[in-house]
Parts: sequence; C-alpha cells; structure tokens
Amino acid sequence: MTKIVRERARIPRDKTNDYTHKIAADRREFIKEHTGANLSHVAQYSFDPAMVSGNIENFAGVAQVPIGLAGPLHIRGEYAQGDFYVPLATSEGTLVASYNRGMKLLTECGGVKTTIVEEFMQRAPVFICSDATEAREFGHWVVANFETIKQQAEATTRIGKLVNIGQYQVGPLRYLRFNYTTGDAAGQNMTGKATWAACEWIKGAYPGEVKYILSGGVDTDKKHSHLNTLLTRGRRVVAEAVIRKDLLKAQMGVDTRELFFSRQISQAGAFLAGSANNGAHAANGLAALFIATGQDAANVAESHAGINYSQLLENGDYYWSMTLPALIVATYGGGTGLATQKQCLEMLDCYGAGKANKFAEICAATVLAGEISLGCAVLHGDWVTSHERLGRNRP
Amino acid sequence: MTKIVRERARIPRDKTNDYTHKIAADRREFIKEHTGANLSHVAQYSFDPAMVSGNIENFAGVAQVPIGLAGPLHIRGEYAQGDFYVPLATSEGTLVASYNRGMKLLTECGGVKTTIVEEFMQRAPVFICSDATEAREFGHWVVANFETIKQQAEATTRIGKLVNIGQYQVGPLRYLRFNYTTGDAAGQNMTGKATWAACEWIKGAYPGEVKYILSGGVDTDKKHSHLNTLLTRGRRVVAEAVIRKDLLKAQMGVDTRELFFSRQISQAGAFLAGSANNGAHAANGLAALFIATGQDAANVAESHAGINYSQLLENGDYYWSMTLPALIVATYGGGTGLATQKQCLEMLDCYGAGKANKFAEICAATVLAGEISLGCAVLHGDWVTSHERLGRNRP
Amino acid sequence: MTKIVRERARIPRDKTNDYTHKIAADRREFIKEHTGANLSHVAQYSFDPAMVSGNIENFAGVAQVPIGLAGPLHIRGEYAQGDFYVPLATSEGTLVASYNRGMKLLTECGGVKTTIVEEFMQRAPVFICSDATEAREFGHWVVANFETIKQQAEATTRIGKLVNIGQYQVGPLRYLRFNYTTGDAAGQNMTGKATWAACEWIKGAYPGEVKYILSGGVDTDKKHSHLNTLLTRGRRVVAEAVIRKDLLKAQMGVDTRELFFSRQISQAGAFLAGSANNGAHAANGLAALFIATGQDAANVAESHAGINYSQLLENGDYYWSMTLPALIVATYGGGTGLATQKQCLEMLDCYGAGKANKFAEICAATVLAGEISLGCAVLHGDWVTSHERLGRNRP
Amino acid sequence: MTKIVRERARIPRDKTNDYTHKIAADRREFIKEHTGANLSHVAQYSFDPAMVSGNIENFAGVAQVPIGLAGPLHIRGEYAQGDFYVPLATSEGTLVASYNRGMKLLTECGGVKTTIVEEFMQRAPVFICSDATEAREFGHWVVANFETIKQQAEATTRIGKLVNIGQYQVGPLRYLRFNYTTGDAAGQNMTGKATWAACEWIKGAYPGEVKYILSGGVDTDKKHSHLNTLLTRGRRVVAEAVIRKDLLKAQMGVDTRELFFSRQISQAGAFLAGSANNGAHAANGLAALFIATGQDAANVAESHAGINYSQLLENGDYYWSMTLPALIVATYGGGTGLATQKQCLEMLDCYGAGKANKFAEICAATVLAGEISLGCAVLHGDWVTSHERLGRNRP
Repeated sequence: MTKIVRERARIPRDKTNDYTHKIAADRREFIKEHTGANLSHVAQYSFDPAMVSGNIENFAGVAQVPIGLAGPLHIRGEYAQGDFYVPLATSEGTLVASYNRGMKLLTECGGVKTTIVEEFMQRAPVFICSDATEAREFGHWVVANFETIKQQAEATTRIGKLVNIGQYQVGPLRYLRFNYTTGDAAGQNMTGKATWAACEWIKGAYPGEVKYILSGGVDTDKKHSHLNTLLTRGRRVVAEAVIRKDLLKAQMGVDTRELFFSRQISQAGAFLAGSANNGAHAANGLAALFIATGQDAANVAESHAGINYSQLLENGDYYWSMTLPALIVATYGGGTGLATQKQCLEMLDCYGAGKANKFAEICAATVLAGEISLGCAVLHGDWVTSHERLGRNRP
Repeated sequence: MTKIVRERARIPRDKTNDYTHKIAADRREFIKEHTGANLSHVAQYSFDPAMVSGNIENFAGVAQVPIGLAGPLHIRGEYAQGDFYVPLATSEGTLVASYNRGMKLLTECGGVKTTIVEEFMQRAPVFICSDATEAREFGHWVVANFETIKQQAEATTRIGKLVNIGQYQVGPLRYLRFNYTTGDAAGQNMTGKATWAACEWIKGAYPGEVKYILSGGVDTDKKHSHLNTLLTRGRRVVAEAVIRKDLLKAQMGVDTRELFFSRQISQAGAFLAGSANNGAHAANGLAALFIATGQDAANVAESHAGINYSQLLENGDYYWSMTLPALIVATYGGGTGLATQKQCLEMLDCYGAGKANKFAEICAATVLAGEISLGCAVLHGDWVTSHERLGRNRP
Repeated sequence: MTKIVRERARIPRDKTNDYTHKIAADRREFIKEHTGANLSHVAQYSFDPAMVSGNIENFAGVAQVPIGLAGPLHIRGEYAQGDFYVPLATSEGTLVASYNRGMKLLTECGGVKTTIVEEFMQRAPVFICSDATEAREFGHWVVANFETIKQQAEATTRIGKLVNIGQYQVGPLRYLRFNYTTGDAAGQNMTGKATWAACEWIKGAYPGEVKYILSGGVDTDKKHSHLNTLLTRGRRVVAEAVIRKDLLKAQMGVDTRELFFSRQISQAGAFLAGSANNGAHAANGLAALFIATGQDAANVAESHAGINYSQLLENGDYYWSMTLPALIVATYGGGTGLATQKQCLEMLDCYGAGKANKFAEICAATVLAGEISLGCAVLHGDWVTSHERLGRNRP
Repeated sequence: MTKIVRERARIPRDKTNDYTHKIAADRREFIKEHTGANLSHVAQYSFDPAMVSGNIENFAGVAQVPIGLAGPLHIRGEYAQGDFYVPLATSEGTLVASYNRGMKLLTECGGVKTTIVEEFMQRAPVFICSDATEAREFGHWVVANFETIKQQAEATTRIGKLVNIGQYQVGPLRYLRFNYTTGDAAGQNMTGKATWAACEWIKGAYPGEVKYILSGGVDTDKKHSHLNTLLTRGRRVVAEAVIRKDLLKAQMGVDTRELFFSRQISQAGAFLAGSANNGAHAANGLAALFIATGQDAANVAESHAGINYSQLLENGDYYWSMTLPALIVATYGGGTGLATQKQCLEMLDCYGAGKANKFAEICAATVLAGEISLGCAVLHGDWVTSHERLGRNRP
C-alpha cells in the first residue's frame, strides 16, 4: 500500500552563505507567501547577519523584546561591588517596577551581600555494564583513573576543568556526573565535548566490556531536578540582606513580624506543593535578565530553583537569604556577544572574560529584590491593584 | 550613630508621558553617563514606545533576539491542522537545526497528533483559621458556597471562568487553589483579580473569623512544582507520533529498538535525579518559541515540565508521546500584541482571540520534534559534532 | 544443553488444615533441619493458630516485639478525648522514654488537639486508550457515569463508599484514582475488589475500545508519594498544641525562641533534602504503635509523611502543628483482631467498629509528642547522651 | 486565673530494677485498672525482661506478630549464596504466599544476583555561620581538616569509619552530611555520638565563630528523602534476575512482553505521582522481614525507596533489577539480639558480626521476589481473587 505525500515547501537556504540580509529577506518572503504573515518588524535588526552564525540557523530576523531599567541596586559581593542598573527584557507589566522598588529598599538597607558558593557545569554519561557488580567495579576503576580521565577531558578545552565525577548507580547502570568549572562560559557544549573525549578513552582503556550513552538523564540539562538543587548546576549563589523594620514599614507598608508570619505559611505551601523554589518568583527576574544579556533563556528551567531562608532578628529586623543552587550564566560565548546583548552586559560591566562571577552575583541580588517586593505586595494588597494600574495590556 | 548615604542617581522618568522615544533615549544616555555602556543597538526598535505601555516600565529599548525558522511541521491536532513554520528566537547554535530535523522526520511519519487534555490557570490564597478543625469546617463552607464564590470571582472578568477550587490543608491553614479557564490569555493577572474579589467576599460572608493571604505558595506561579505536574497549570497538552522504523534509521541513523533500550535508561535517570521532565530538553523549544511570540518567558519554569511515555510497537515502529502538564500560553494580552511578537504569532495563524488552543498544540508538537532529534543525536554520536559544526560562538 | 537443578526442600504444608500447632512445629523442625536454627522462642505464642488464618501463610510462630508504655497523653480530639496510655512495640532504646517525656509536656500544656481533615483509601487503575484524545473523552465519560460506577463499586462492599475519582492523564493513559471511605478498615483490599468490579463494568459499558490494569502506580500503595501528601491516603490528620514557654524551659531546658530559630533551619534542610516529612521522626512512633496494634507496618512507608507548621506566638509560647497526610490505620480487620494486638487496641479503647477515627487521632497526637521531645533533645544536647544512657544494646 | 489539673496516674516504675517480670506485671495491672484492658496475651513472652534493657523503656510485655516462612529463595550474591528460607512477620494475608511464589519463580530462573554498591550511615549537623561567605569558607576549612575530624569522630567508636563529609549550603547554613560505614550495626547512634564529638572539636578548633545543631534535617533519619535515593543511606543494594519467558508464562500466566508493556505504564505512573519507589511494594517484604529479625521497623520509611530498571531481552526473557538506595539493616546491636529476632536471623545465618552485608542481600532479593509476584498478579487478575481467598480477616 503506497501513500503519496505531496511535496512540502522547504525554507530557503543559501549554500554559499546562509547568513546574509538577502537570505533572511528570502525567508521572510517565503513565510509571507506560505502563511500570509508580514515580518516587517522582524526584519528590523541592526547587525550584520554574519554575526549570528553559530547562534542560529535559518535566520530570518529578530524578536524585539522591550527592555526596562531597574536600579540602582547596591551590591556588596565578592565580584559585584557598587551600584548597578539592571536591564530587564520582558513584556510582563509591573515586573520592572516591582524589581525596582525591591532594589530601592535593599539599597537603602545597605545593599545585598552576595556569595558564590560553588560552581559546576555537567555532562553526565551513563555506562551500561553487564550487571550491578560489574557496574560498581567499573565505578571504582573510574575513581582510580580519575587523573587520566581528567587529562583526556581537559585536552579538549582551554578553559574547562574537571573537578570531580559524581557516581550514581541503578541496577547495572553507572551514571557518571562530570562536574567541571567552565570559566565565563555556561559550558554545556564545552563539557559535552570534553566528556565525550573522556568517555571514548574510558571505553578503550577499561579492561572490561562497557558501553555508554553520553547523557543518561542526570545532567540534568534544561530541566529542573532535585539533584541540581542538592549538588549545584552552574553556580550556587546566595544573596543576603537585612531588611530594616522601619524601612520595610515605610516603603512597603508591611511589618517584619507580619512578613515572617507569612513566611511560615509560604514555606509550608511550597513543601506541600513540591515546588522547585520556596520563594516567590525568581523566574521573573532571571528570565528578563537572561533575555537582555544573551543568556540561554531555556536555562530558566534550572536556574529558577531556589531556597529561601529567613530569620526574624531580635531587634525586629528581617534577615533574608535566597540561595540559587543552579544558576547558569555566561559572559562569554553563546549569545553574549550579540549586538544588544553585549551592550546590556556592558551596562553591568559584565561582558567578556573574567566577568561571569560578577554577573552571577548581580542575578542573585536582582532575584532577592523581586522576592521582597512581591512578598510585601501580596501582604499589603498591592499585588492586584498594581497589576491593574501598570499591566494594562491584559484582555 | 549616623550614616551618610550619598545621593544615588535615579533612572530618568517623564511624569507626563513615560513611553516616548525621548525618555527612552534619555535613559540610554543616563546609562552611558553612569556606566559607560553605549546602548546604540538597544535603541534600534521599530515601534512606537506607546505600544509597550502596560508591558514594561522604564523602557529604554529592546533586546534583539535572533529568530530562526523551523519546519514545516505537520500537525494533526484538534485546533492546529496542517503544516506549520515555527519561529524560534534563541542564541543557542544548533537549536533550530535540531528542531528542524525532528520536524522533518515527524512530518514524513505522518505528523504529530496533539490533544489538549485540560486547562486551568490558578491563584491560590491561603486561609488562616484558628485551628485545624475550624479550617476543615471553613473548607466545607467553601464547597457549600461555591456557586456564589464563582459569581464573585467571575464578576471581575469577561473571560475567566472558575471551574473548581482545590483544597489542601496543613495544620490550621486551608490552601484554596482556584482553577480557572482564561480563554486566550495566560490569565495570571485575571485570576489574581478574580480570586481577590472572591476572597474579599468570603472574608465578609463566612460566619467565623478568618484571614487570608492572596497567595499561599501553592499556585505555584513562576515555578515548577509537583502539584502542577499532577493537577495542571495552564494547559495539559499531549503530542503523540508513531515514528517509522525505516525512516528513523534512514534519517537519524538510529534503530527504534536501540532508542527504546535507551529510553529505559533515561527514565531511570530522570527518576533518580528527581527531574521535572523525564524527556530531553522541552525548555529549549519552549523558551525559543515563547520569546518569539511574546509569551512570558518566565513561564518556562512551569511549562518545561513533561512526561514522556513510549512503547515499542510489534512492527518495530516507535510510539512516542510527550505530555506537557503545565504549558502556559497566550495569544491575546501580555506581550502577544508587540510588534515582532504579533508577526510571529501571525506566521502560525495564532494571533488574537480563539487561538490559544491552537498555539498550545503547536508548542507541544514542536517540543516532540526536539525530543526526537536530540534523543537520536545522543545515541548516534551527532550531538557533540553538530555543536562543533554549528555552534561556533563558543569560547 | 540441559541443566540439572537439584530438588529443593519445600516448606511443609498441611492440605487438610494449615493452621495448627502441629504444622507450625513441623515448619520449625524443617528450618532446624535445613538451617540449624532453633526456633524455640518463635514457638512461644499464646493463641490458637487457627486465629491467624487470613493473616499469614506458612505460619511457624511469632516475633515477640517488646512493648513499652508511654503516657498519659491528654488528647482533645473529636473522637479521642481524655488521657491515654500508649503501647509502643519497638527495640530502639530511648524511643519510649522520648515519646513519654513529650507526652508529659503536651499534657501539662493542656493536651493535644486533633482533627481528622479528610479520609480516602484508593485503588488507581489505569485505562489504556488508543490516543490522548480518546483518553480525554474516556475521562469525560467516567465523569458522566460516576453514579453507576459508584454503584458497581459499592455493590461489592458493605462498608466502602466511593467518594470521587481523581483523573490524571499521561499520553494515551488515563489514571483513575478511586477515592473511598472504608470505615474502620484500612481498606486496601476492599477498594481493590470494588474498583475491579467498577473497572469490569466500565470495560463493558464504555462505547469504545479500552483496556485497563487494576493498578497503574498512582495509588500509591505501600510507598510514599508526593501525590499522597497532596491528596491524602488513609486519613489526613492534624495534631496541634500550644507549648508554654515556661514549661518548655523547665522540662526540656529549651527556649521557645531558640526552638523556632532551629525550626527555620530544619525546614530549609527538609526542603533541600527533598524529604517526605519536614519534621523529625514520625516513623518512630508510628512504627511502634502500628506493630503493637496490628496495623500493617508496611504502611509506615506512606504514613510517615508529614508537614510541620509552627508559629512563635506574641507571648513567647510556641504553636506547633503536625499534619499527617497519609495516615493509614484500622481498628477492624487485618491484624487488629490478633491476640496481643487486640489487647493493645483495647488499652486505647480502639478495638473494632467505630474506632478508627479515634485511633487515628491518637496516632497523630503521639507523633507530635515525639517531635517535641526529639526536637528539644537535639537542641539541648540530650540526644547523644540519652542514647548512651538508655540505648545500651549497641555494639 | 488558676486552673486545677487533677493528678494524673503515672505508669509504675521500679527504681531498683525496671526490667523484671514483676514490674512488667505491675504495668499490665495498672493498665487494666485505668483502661479496663486485659493484657494477658501481651504478658506471654518467653525471655527474661533483663534482656530488653537497652531496647525499651516501661516494658510491659510483647506484641506477638505472626511469622510465616517463604522460600527457598536462591541467591547468588557476594555474601548471600545458596538457598534461603525467609521469615516474614506480618498480619497481611497473602503477603507470604505472594513473596513465596515470586521466590519460586526466581529460584527456578537461576536465582537472584545481589550486589551491595555502597554503604553509608549518616548524621548531618548544620553549622550556622554569620553569612554565606563565611559558611563557604567554613566548608573549605572542613575539607582541609578532614583527617583530624575523622580521627575525632572515630575515637568514639570501634567500628564506625568516617568515609567522607557531604556539604550542602543554604544561605549562611552549611549542612555537613557525615557518611560512615558502621559494620554490622545500623549505626544511627554510633554516628550520632561520633559526629557530636567531631562537631565539638570543630567548634573549638575553627578559627571563627560558629554554632551547630547536631541534626539539621538532611540526615534524613527515619524519613524518605530524595537525597537518600541519590546518595545512599544504609546500604545501596541491587537485586537482579533474568526471568525466563517460558517460566513466567507457565507459573504466572503472563507474557514477558505484556509485563514490559505494563512496566512503561507503571513507570509513567510513578513519575507522575512523585513516588519514592517506581516498583510495586518493597515496603511489604521489608517491613515483614524487619519485624521478624529485629530491625528498626521505622526504617521502612527510608528503606522502602527503590528504583526499578528492566529491559526486555532479544530472546524474550525479561531482565529485572531493583535498586534499594537506602536499605538500613543490622545483624548486631539494636533488636537483633532479642529472643525471637535472633532466631530468625540465625535461620538466615545472619546473626552477629560480619553478617550485615549478607542480610542486606537477602532483603533485596526478597523484595525482588515480591515485585515479580505482585506485578504479575495485577496483570493476570489474581490480585483481587487471591486476597479474597487468602485474606479472610477483612470486614
């Protein structure tokens, strides 16, 4: 029985040079022809298409995402020190305003202290052994040969350093989580390449029969996991601040005691819900900052995880910390060098080599600002009304 | 003891009209002055700033995120039917190419079947009672008064409909999860406003003492939660396809049996890791599609959750389904009406009223394409090499 | 190639009557012969073996588990009211002493308030449909035919009542979670039988092709799950108390403020760990009480889940609640009628019909006593030293 | 306002010797007097009460839990080798029969292969630092001083060995998970004492201000946690078997292909439910074996976690593995030396020093037998009917 499939229209490509104004225009024309959609705004980009080779395929133009500015945010980090103006790319009304008022309060309270606790980017192959005993022995062999494995991995990269290999066994499967530092790059590709080289070496050198798959699902790339929360993916960053009782009352209309009372309730709720974050809305600030600065927005999946830990101090002030266990950022490579993205990183003095830690600290401090603002809005009743006032594009 | 805080430079605002080219330019100039960063590319937007009032505050320009086209993707949904060209805004090299090849395979296998299983947008206040018995009785009262609560909530919106109220108790706390349908809007604000009205009514009408907080942490807004996976947030959408054994081998170089073998391993890995998604990388496709079409990119946090369910069929073909339990999309309101975003929705015939279901189906089908492509790349060894070839912007 | 397997010795059975002293003795003799083990103590049971028909197969004797008494524990429940002496069967030194001192404190603080929030026992079949659309439609059909399904299920039992059916879809699979009340029985078998009858009816009556498996893994029987925590398995019970600041200091040497400080830390720890219980050790009290009273000790898996919610009150007293979302108990059927088990239930006035709610309240109140005792021991430094003093059987 | 509390009756104690027949009888008499319950069966223990000093306080008698025998189960482990008869203490009808038939099948298929992958018992103090930076530095100091910390900890125990210290940071809190091997004891107390000694040393030696709490909630003692599943608590044990297609059909009436089909469904269900175990009912076998052999039954909470990993082999046979990541067992100390418990351990040649690994392997193999039996019963429709036939004590 045969089945005739009609020829489908293929998106235009230019085999000579696929990154030109011409081929981008051809694609927009193709879309107009096949869907009727006019991509006139999509066409309004301000850079040479050659610039996005390596960032995108079948380039046709750009999404223009509005950027708003928040700040100044005073940060007392190890890398980020001083006042920062933060670019947030979003279309959610009130988001910038909300982060902005949180930043104002934090700054007046003396700023945010930030700490990068540790840093790991992963690729996690799985080795498939003949049985569980063999898998365990294989794991011991990996430990014994770590230095050579490290050499093999690091030979593929100038920057990536293999710090250790976490091992997790299920039946005859040995999942190896290769933990690297990757400098100022996010490092997913770097670690993929390095781990592949290491696995190929292992496969040849191991004195037994062993197969592997380069990712066994415990990386866990582009998805939240409890493993990431426990053992870090990207950077584990803490932002801390002491909120003064008088300033909280004056600016947010909320008493610190009331805030702490409600914290007990939201903690119970987060535990009940099985939430990836027992805070409020880290994803909002991170997504906006990621888009503005050329981060991989898909990493919001991992990066939005968070653990809030607070205490009401004896004097009535409120100690607030937010720990982001899987913050994935880059200041080099990926989308960081694109036209607007680079400029937004420069606004933070975070473009290029040696800046990723600084940028990570700014991300965490920004998240904390959003937590405080939304937490107080919910209590004070501003939440709905401010969306009413500022978020007018709703149906 | 006094502490002198120097006056900090405030971001310029225009009290008369804060959405003009002028004030945007002032802000960029302010940034240049205070940080040295030149925002010349950020300035290159092609719309009237008045358009983003309601979407952003302190508007200064735009992020230009490259858009690539993938497709055609053949979809056999209830709302999306036919061939689609999908705009993906990303800076991750290979992403578009990878989704594109998955779409090609799926299309040649007869396309993707899509189903919207259910739809719920939430706001989840918590009511604080005097003790657990009172909280339980309060919950019964809510059940008994559901129709009136529904009226109160729905009086605030033309579109939102309160379907039911989930109730979860911890100690003296009664968390109410208000589940709405919200038409073609994502609905977070709509449901916030409606629930607030309902809560105010409850507070007055309930014949006992009761306090509430408008969000108790079980919404769970802008964060992944197990609750969302179980009980849906946004839309619960399934994409299904039968991958032909011969086509998979021909196009991806992978045998279906091998793919199914590896599926057992990645399922064990995802369970071990406590992952939000036992598939590969839903966040990639969703983030790119969300940015292109004016969705709230922060919702990648919720939307990237997924459950893969597959079977190897008797004839060697491969049945593959991906269920997205918390896909949050809109075709109306929010960022959907912005310049480039609207055009990208139009490319899919998904702009405006009556299109959200269709767009949700396209999202799910796109995710499935990416799953198949990456799953095969990992097995076939293309994964690292294709990033080497296509993703050249890495350090 | 043949393989000769030697004949293996089979455990003796008596086809006429398998529940006699004789056959039990034969089995012990068989064990002695084949393993050398003398089961003289195992032989020391005080009941007629006929009594355990329906509770065990291949009966050979008993485990003698030491019972200690704790109490009095004052409870102000809806079913349990007054002072109780609680039998705890355990071999962990200090356990009884620890619960006992918690009970003393609680009792002097006015006792424990207990509330049964809701009650559900489940069987959760999965229906396998041809695709996701069909599965959704099947689900709607189930809703429309609920009354008949309920009749079919309830026709198999005098006691079980089908309250509702939760529905959860993954791909073409529709998991139905049948939620019953089961009176004073735990109800796993009752609900299995009833659900099987309902499923058989559905299979015949549904106007489409549908297959089912009686358990699809979302019951979730004999295992903890987040689903249970959210949606209750067995009984959802809350125990609450206000701990007086002065009494806590006097009896435990701990200040309520210090206790609350540490609560923030253990909550963060439980969230970080992905724990089934953000309290201390509910499993200890429950396992001991379950063994003493003929509960199914395997249900400790589900029952030990818990959510602690506390507040430090204005006057310095400490409000403490423990919610057990999946407490599975019986006072009728199963092991409740066995010789010692029945006597232990009688000690609580909890044997037989109409007592399960009362017993559930005692369980929750007991758990709370253990939480307070251990929580304070950890802070005060008694923890290690009391085990040194009381737990002398360690190596 | 005064409140008169009547004097409550206190459980009798004997300050001279609290472990005698006399004082146990006094307690039973006390209970009879205050509750009316006759504890005549509870009184029927066959050992000297002096034996349970260190295991229980306020001793009053015993719970007699019926023991049934299952087996022979052929095991090909590293420690357990040969045929075993397994004592199961339970009151759940069909449990022994079900495990027994699983053992028969496994034995005829060549037995169960068992592997102990790793072993860790924990105590996890939390150190509270002034801020997150200090906490990180404290963590580095702990790494640098590991050898001394190890000496301090190990000085308190002949048996426990500190293998490593996992570190997890949240805000200014540094949770240290001390991982020990504890020989043939479960080790909770041993590790508590050793860790306390280590912490006291740390507190004195660390050149900064630091406080600690001996348990910060990430141990996670007596409760399931995702942390345990990932990083092991007690022993991580794998049981594997290849089920022959012909024998499965002959004995269970189920085809391996059908079984594998259903495995995909139950895996999806477990992932959906957020279950601690994606198998069937490990808790059943473990609870019964734990009670029979003097294990701490509360550890069913941790021990019941499991990961099933299976493959359908080319020849139609079925590879089945069950990994128990948190199996906590002892053959020395705790309740293992009690009268019946010791005899049951002897039946397995597992009493005393050097036997814990062997016993752990028997536990895992037993669990696997139960998985296969129940899995097939559900598919074949035996499940409800066998409970009807064997479980007659239900209401």
